[in-house]
Amino acid sequence: MLGDMAKKVQVRFLPDDKTIEVDKGTDLLNAAIEADIYIDSICGGRGKCGKCKVIVQAGDVTAEKTELLEPGEIKKGYHLACMTRAEGDVEVLVPEESRVGLLQILMKAEVVDAGKLDPPIVKFYFELSEPTLTDNLSDLDRLKRALSDHGFEDIMGPLPVMRRMSNLFRKSEWDVTATVVEDGECHELVHLQGGDTSARNFGMAVDVGTTTVVAELVNLSSGEIVAKEAAYNKQVIHGEDVLTRILHAEEEKDGLKNLRMLIVETINYLLKEMMDEAGVRRNEICYAAAAGNTVMTHLLLGLNPAHIRREPYIPSANFFPLIKARETGIKINPEGYIYILPCRSSYVGGDITADVLASALHKTDKLSMLIDVGTNGEVVLGNKDWMVSCSCSAGPAFEGGEVDYGIRAMVGAIEKVTLTTDLEVRYKTIGDVKPKGICGTGLIDLLAEMFMHGVIDRSGRIRPLKIPRVRDGPEGKEFVVVWADETRIYKDMVITEVDIRNIIRTKAAVYAAATVLLKTMNYSFDDVEQIFIAGGFGNYLDTRKSIWLGLLPDVDPDKFRFIGNGSLAGARLTILSKKSKQEAIDIAKKMTYIELSVTPSFFNEFTSAMFLPHTDLEKFPSARELVI
Amino acid sequence: MLGDMAKKVQVRFLPDDKTIEVDKGTDLLNAAIEADIYIDSICGGRGKCGKCKVIVQAGDVTAEKTELLEPGEIKKGYHLACMTRAEGDVEVLVPEESRVGLLQILMKAEVVDAGKLDPPIVKFYFELSEPTLTDNLSDLDRLKRALSDHGFEDIMGPLPVMRRMSNLFRKSEWDVTATVVEDGECHELVHLQGGDTSARNFGMAVDVGTTTVVAELVNLSSGEIVAKEAAYNKQVIHGEDVLTRILHAEEEKDGLKNLRMLIVETINYLLKEMMDEAGVRRNEICYAAAAGNTVMTHLLLGLNPAHIRREPYIPSANFFPLIKARETGIKINPEGYIYILPCRSSYVGGDITADVLASALHKTDKLSMLIDVGTNGEVVLGNKDWMVSCSCSAGPAFEGGEVDYGIRAMVGAIEKVTLTTDLEVRYKTIGDVKPKGICGTGLIDLLAEMFMHGVIDRSGRIRPLKIPRVRDGPEGKEFVVVWADETRIYKDMVITEVDIRNIIRTKAAVYAAATVLLKTMNYSFDDVEQIFIAGGFGNYLDTRKSIWLGLLPDVDPDKFRFIGNGSLAGARLTILSKKSKQEAIDIAKKMTYIELSVTPSFFNEFTSAMFLPHTDLEKFPSARELVI
Repeated sequence: MLGDMAKKVQVRFLPDDKTIEVDKGTDLLNAAIEADIYIDSICGGRGKCGKCKVIVQAGDVTAEKTELLEPGEIKKGYHLACMTRAEGDVEVLVPEESRVGLLQILMKAEVVDAGKLDPPIVKFYFELSEPTLTDNLSDLDRLKRALSDHGFEDIMGPLPVMRRMSNLFRKSEWDVTATVVEDGECHELVHLQGGDTSARNFGMAVDVGTTTVVAELVNLSSGEIVAKEAAYNKQVIHGEDVLTRILHAEEEKDGLKNLRMLIVETINYLLKEMMDEAGVRRNEICYAAAAGNTVMTHLLLGLNPAHIRREPYIPSANFFPLIKARETGIKINPEGYIYILPCRSSYVGGDITADVLASALHKTDKLSMLIDVGTNGEVVLGNKDWMVSCSCSAGPAFEGGEVDYGIRAMVGAIEKVTLTTDLEVRYKTIGDVKPKGICGTGLIDLLAEMFMHGVIDRSGRIRPLKIPRVRDGPEGKEFVVVWADETRIYKDMVITEVDIRNIIRTKAAVYAAATVLLKTMNYSFDDVEQIFIAGGFGNYLDTRKSIWLGLLPDVDPDKFRFIGNGSLAGARLTILSKKSKQEAIDIAKKMTYIELSVTPSFFNEFTSAMFLPHTDLEKFPSARELVI
Repeated sequence: MLGDMAKKVQVRFLPDDKTIEVDKGTDLLNAAIEADIYIDSICGGRGKCGKCKVIVQAGDVTAEKTELLEPGEIKKGYHLACMTRAEGDVEVLVPEESRVGLLQILMKAEVVDAGKLDPPIVKFYFELSEPTLTDNLSDLDRLKRALSDHGFEDIMGPLPVMRRMSNLFRKSEWDVTATVVEDGECHELVHLQGGDTSARNFGMAVDVGTTTVVAELVNLSSGEIVAKEAAYNKQVIHGEDVLTRILHAEEEKDGLKNLRMLIVETINYLLKEMMDEAGVRRNEICYAAAAGNTVMTHLLLGLNPAHIRREPYIPSANFFPLIKARETGIKINPEGYIYILPCRSSYVGGDITADVLASALHKTDKLSMLIDVGTNGEVVLGNKDWMVSCSCSAGPAFEGGEVDYGIRAMVGAIEKVTLTTDLEVRYKTIGDVKPKGICGTGLIDLLAEMFMHGVIDRSGRIRPLKIPRVRDGPEGKEFVVVWADETRIYKDMVITEVDIRNIIRTKAAVYAAATVLLKTMNYSFDDVEQIFIAGGFGNYLDTRKSIWLGLLPDVDPDKFRFIGNGSLAGARLTILSKKSKQEAIDIAKKMTYIELSVTPSFFNEFTSAMFLPHTDLEKFPSARELVI
C-alpha cells in the first residue's frame, strides 16, 4: 500500500504536448501547474468556480461529482481539473477557453496563500435577538452589537439603508444579512436583506478600454466568475482615440457629460446582460472596480481631461476616492461603491496598474517587461524594487478600428489565418461560423503570412501579383482575404494597404516604446528575463508571427508570459482581495514614467520600426529568412 | 506706577445690583464673569462677535474702537464689555439681550482654553505653484501636497468638487481656498473656491423642536453668530406632539415622507432668511448640526419612528452617521455635511444631549439637575461621573400650543405680566408693541399672579369674581388678559380654565419627572447643588413665580442656572469645536435613563403635582402664604 502511494503516473497535456510525471492521485490542476500549463481557476482548486475545464482524452481518472459541467460537456469528456485525479497515465486536452494565462496561477497563489478570499465587501448573516424592555438597544445598535463580534465597530449605513432597517428587521423576524464595505477608512453598512443571503455577494470588474469594454460579474463569497461580457465603448462615435475624445469633451457643448453618459451606458449594458445571464439582481451587487487609461477614467467620472493633452500633461487626478455607485450612474446597488484603479500619469493609467497587479511584476526578482497593446500601447519595465513605464498612441487597429474589416474578438471574427503556397487563405473564426471580420490575432496572422509569402514587402506595400486576390481598390492595392459568398456580410473581405500601414504603425509604436524604455534604463531585450503580454488578444497571440512582424522582440519565446486582459484581471483582483487593492495603490505610487512625446529618441525608434520586421534586421535574426 | 497697576475699582452691575472689586483696567466682560453675571460672548472676548453689549451708565471707562456697535447704540452708552476697561468705579447695565446664560461663559472657557476655535470644517488658502514638465503632479495631488503641510493626508473630494477643480485652478491662477471636513474618520475636500475666502466659513446650528425650530448661522472662522431665526415647525399641521406625528407617519400614505419634507422645509426657510440677512451664499455653508428629540430626529432623517411608541420603545437608531447635506434635502452646500446630535433612547433625544453639553453638567463635580421644558419635558440628574435621565410628555403649552392665545416668544408676545391689587393687568410685550398673544414666560407670570391674587384656586379653577375680566366663555370660565382694542388681533385676549389645566398638566409632568428621578437615585431636591433650566424661555423665567406654580422646586434661587435654548447652544458647540462634538457622543453613551411610562410612582407624583403649587404644601414653603 505504501508503495502504491508513491507510484508515479504520466500526464500528457495537449495541445502543448508537455508530459509530466506526478504521484498517482494528483489532481490535474496541480499537474498542470507543475507542467507550467496555465489553467484558469478562481476558487483556488476547490471545485467551486468551474473554470478549470479540461478534456480527458485517454487514461484512467477518478472525478468528484460536480454540477458545474453540463451533461453535453460530460459526454465530450470534460472534467474539472481540480476535481479529477490521475490514477494512471493520462492524456489531457486543455481547451482554449480554460487558458487564461499566468494570471490565474498568480491569483490562485494569492487566494490559497491567504487561506481565504478577502474582498472589500463582506456579508454577515445574523439571527438577532428580539428587543425587550431590558434589552432595548435601537435597531441599529442591535445590529452593531452583532457586527462587533466580527471586529466592526460603529458601523452605520446611509439614510436609504437606515430607513428600511426597522421594518425589515421585524418582517424578517430578526434574521438578517448585512453587507458591509470594509475599505481603508470606509466602513459602512451598504445593504440589508432579510434571511441568509451571505452566499450571494457579487462584485463587478470592468476593463474600461478606449475601444472595447469588458466586464465580469464575480461572486465574492466563492470567487466564482458568474458572467462575462464585452462590448464596444459607445464613445467611439466621438473619436477612436483618447485625443479626439478629449477634444470632444473640450469643444462640444455638454461634450464631457455626453462622453460620461456613453461609457456609463456601455457599462450598464454589460451589467444588465450579465445580471440576466447569471440571475443576479441589482441590489446584490454592492461593489465594482474599474480599470481604464487615465483619459477613460476621467471620462467615466466626468473629470475634466483637457489638460492631459497639453504640455505639461496634467490630469485632474491620478488617485480617486471610493465613490458611491449612485453618484457614478453605474447601476449596481446605488449604495454600493465603485473603486477606480489608480493611474500613474496622464498616459499611464489604471489599466497599466491593473496589468502590473495581474502579472505580479511588482513582486518578482526578475527583470521583467510588460507590454499592453490596446488603443494605447503601454510598456512597463522593472521588478519588485523599481518600475518605469511609458505609453504610446498605438491606435485601435488590433481591436477592430482603423482596419476596414477589423472587428473585436467575437463570434464570427477570423482569429487564425494561414496562406498556402499558392496563396489561398485558410482561416478559423471564433465560434466556427461564417466570418464577418478579422480580429487582432487574425490580423497579425494575416500580415505575418502575407509577409512570409511575399504578398507584401518590408514597407507593407502589396506586391503587384497576378492573382485574383490582389487587385486595385478605392484606396490603392488590396488583398481579398475571404470572398463574398463565404462571409456573413456578402462582400469581399479585403485588407488594404491603408489597413496594413495602420497595423504597422501600431506595432512600430509599441516596439519603439519598449526600446526607448530599455535604453533609458541601460538595458537590452536580452537582459529581460520575462515579458508579460497583456491586452485583449494576449492569450492567443502567435509569438513567432508577432516576432516576424516586429511587434514582439526577437527573444527566446519561453520568456513570453501571456496574461490576457490584465486590466480586467487586475480589476478582478481588487474586488477579490483588499491586499491586492492596496498593492494597486502601491504600484501606482512606486512606478515612475517617461514621457515619450518629449523623448527625442522615440521618434527615431518609431521610424526605424515602420518596416517589417524593422529597419535593422540584426535585431530580428529569426525573421531574416523571410526577407526577400 | 506699580501702585497704579494694583489699584482697585468697583464695578456695579444692574439690574442684578451686584458690585465687584477688580483691578483698574479690567475689562467689563471679565468683571462680569467674576460677579457671576452671565454676559453673552461667542468669540472669547476678542471683540469679534459683538454679543457682549452693555450700557455704561456712570463712571470712567476706556473703550477700543469697534464697528459692531450702531451709532444709535453708541449714543445710548452701549459698549462691548470685552473691549471696555474700567478706569474708575463704574455702573453697568446688562441688557436682557446680552444675557444668554451660563452657556456663554462655559463656551468662552472652552474656546479660550483651546487657544482657538476647533470646528470640524476648516478652510485653507493656498497659492499653488503652476505645474511644469518636472513638477507634473495631477491637480488633486498638487492640492494634496499643500494640504499635507496642515497634517491632512490623502484628502479627496466628491465627484462634483473634483469635476470643477481643473478649470477653477487655472481660472484663479492657482490661488484657491479649500474647505475640508475633518470629522472623526471623515476627511474630505467638500468645497473649492478661487482666491482667499478663508474668513468666510459658515456653519448652521439647528434646534429641531416639536413645536418651534430655531437656527443660527455661525462664522466658524471667527465664532461670530451672523444670523438667528425661529419659526414654528411646519409639521404641527399633523399633530402637536410626537405621538400624533408618529401615528401620522405610520398610518397616512407617504406620511413619513411628508413629515420629513415639512421639517426640511422649515429648516430651509430659516436658512434662507438667515442667508439673506447675513449676505451668505449657500455654498459658503458646508456644515450644520441639528439637535432634536428622538422622534424629531427620526422624522428629519426619514427613519421609521413607529416602534418608538410601542413597548419596548425601540428607535431605529440613536447614533447617526455624518450625512451629506444633499441626501437630507437641507440646502446648505450639497457636498457639506449634517451632523445629528446623538440620542440616548426613544424619549431622551439629541436635544438633551445638547442641553447637557451646553450646561457642562457632564464636567462638573457638583450634583446637578437639568430641566428642559419643551413639548416634551426632560430631566437629567448627575455630574461628571454619572448621569441619569427621563422624559415626560409636557405638551406645547409653553410654546404657544394648547393655549388659545398662546404664541411662541416673538415680537408682540406678552412676556411679563403683573396684576394690581384691583386685578388690573400690567404687561410687557417683546418689542414693546401691541400684544398678539402670550408666550411661555408670560403664561407663567400670568398664572402665578392670578394664583397670588386669588383669581384662581389651587386646582386652577377661576373663582367667580364679580369683575368684568372674569366671565363665562364657550369653554367655561375665562379671564380677560387684554381687552380687544389694546391688541393687534382685535379680540379680547383671554385665558380659559382649559388653558390653565393644560399649563398645570405641563408643570405637573415636569415636576413629577424630576421627583421620580431624584427618588430613584435616593436624593432629594436639597441635595442638588445646581439646577440648569433649559428651553426656549429659559433665560427669562421668573424663578420665584415658577416656584409658586410648582413648576420649579422650592430651593435656594441661587441654585438655578439658566442656559436658554440648550438644544441650540449644544448644537452650536458641536460646529465650533470637534472636542465638544466628541463630548456629545460621550454624553449620549454615558447617560442612563428611566422609562417613566413603566415607572408606577410617576403617575402618583404627577397626580399630586396637578395642584398649585402641589398637593403637599410642605414641599413649597415659599408658596404657603399664597394659598388662601
